Amino acid sequence: MSQRIKALVFDAYGTLFDVHSVISTCNQNFPDQGAALSQRWRAKQLEYTWLRSLMGRYEDFWQVTESALVFACKSLNLSCSPATRTQLMEAYLHLDPYTEVREALKALSNYPLAILSNGSPRMLHAVVKSAGLEGVFSHVISVDEVKIYKPSPRVYQLASQRMSVSETSIGFVSSNSWDVIGAKAFGFWTCWVNRSAAPGDELGVTPDVTVKTLADLVDVLKA
Amino acid sequence: MSQRIKALVFDAYGTLFDVHSVISTCNQNFPDQGAALSQRWRAKQLEYTWLRSLMGRYEDFWQVTESALVFACKSLNLSCSPATRTQLMEAYLHLDPYTEVREALKALSNYPLAILSNGSPRMLHAVVKSAGLEGVFSHVISVDEVKIYKPSPRVYQLASQRMSVSETSIGFVSSNSWDVIGAKAFGFWTCWVNRSAAPGDELGVTPDVTVKTLADLVDVLKA
Repeated sequence: MSQRIKALVFDAYGTLFDVHSVISTCNQNFPDQGAALSQRWRAKQLEYTWLRSLMGRYEDFWQVTESALVFACKSLNLSCSPATRTQLMEAYLHLDPYTEVREALKALSNYPLAILSNGSPRMLHAVVKSAGLEGVFSHVISVDEVKIYKPSPRVYQLASQRMSVSETSIGFVSSNSWDVIGAKAFGFWTCWVNRSAAPGDELGVTPDVTVKTLADLVDVLKA
Repeated sequence: MSQRIKALVFDAYGTLFDVHSVISTCNQNFPDQGAALSQRWRAKQLEYTWLRSLMGRYEDFWQVTESALVFACKSLNLSCSPATRTQLMEAYLHLDPYTEVREALKALSNYPLAILSNGSPRMLHAVVKSAGLEGVFSHVISVDEVKIYKPSPRVYQLASQRMSVSETSIGFVSSNSWDVIGAKAFGFWTCWVNRSAAPGDELGVTPDVTVKTLADLVDVLKA
């Protein structure tokens, strides 16, 4: 299997970068509400990507993320000033990478490595730089090029095209169960990074392998 | 405005029929977990309609609803036997209509009335019959005809085509904020039934009117 893989493509948010590292900034502004706000913000962010894609009304991930924050605050009855909103949005540009990320990517550097993400180009550039991962990826690919969000097949096709690697030779890695399923349905070999031991989504497709962290993927690909 | 409206189209689940009327059946099987299970079941059901639509892998609403139930049980660590699953799924065929529904529809019967729903034809037939609403609707329209879910514009277009009424002459009524927004973006006049006084979704489109129950819609259209 590892002989088949010619390139590795990683999801960004939730896979390389911990979206819930905004909790501390949320807590600073809204004591004891950080976890609830972060949870709702993330859920609504994803929901809006799907709804906007289906409606054919794409807006970039920065705008979607800000709209989701506004909704999440309202739904929790939190009054979010413009200054607080700016601070919380800025936190998204400096998300922490998961602890094993740097070392795992180094161990996988015999493959061309790419990011394929919902994030806008500016957001991805900022978060990669903030995490000290500049130069690690041959391609940082944003859905913004095709103006539709994951799990549209057009997004996964974009990675194959941009990297000039056929879909069956791409190994796709994501912590988002539905993202892995979308990628597998498109034709990628897929690895689900299931850090929280969650049940997989019931969408009729199963990832090729499931690991607990990216460190385990290194072992899988060596085997 | 009411002169412009030539037909009224209603969403079914959450608008006419209370999806959370399954809570008692959930509680019978999983004591004290009914509300949590119903909440998660519904959230996942919608998520799967969006994901399957975006992936281009439509399955009908019965299958999606069952898959969502399986996931929801797993995510709450509830062991759901085949018999329990059957019982919970059957409950979906007998959802309670909201208390004001029968009287409000009667008061609106000077308009052609229709249902436009994610539900499969069999599910819709069963729930309409169970609620004693047979004969009330000139059209009961399922997304199953176009094999994609709301809020795809193709769904709203289907109602306009099937009823032979132009989109600007259709009044569309839903309790689901994102559904109202999808319908408004397509071109319908829209009414959001916001029974729980929830914040509206931040998707750049606002419904024409917002009411608390369907009884208020009767007053709006008379005005």
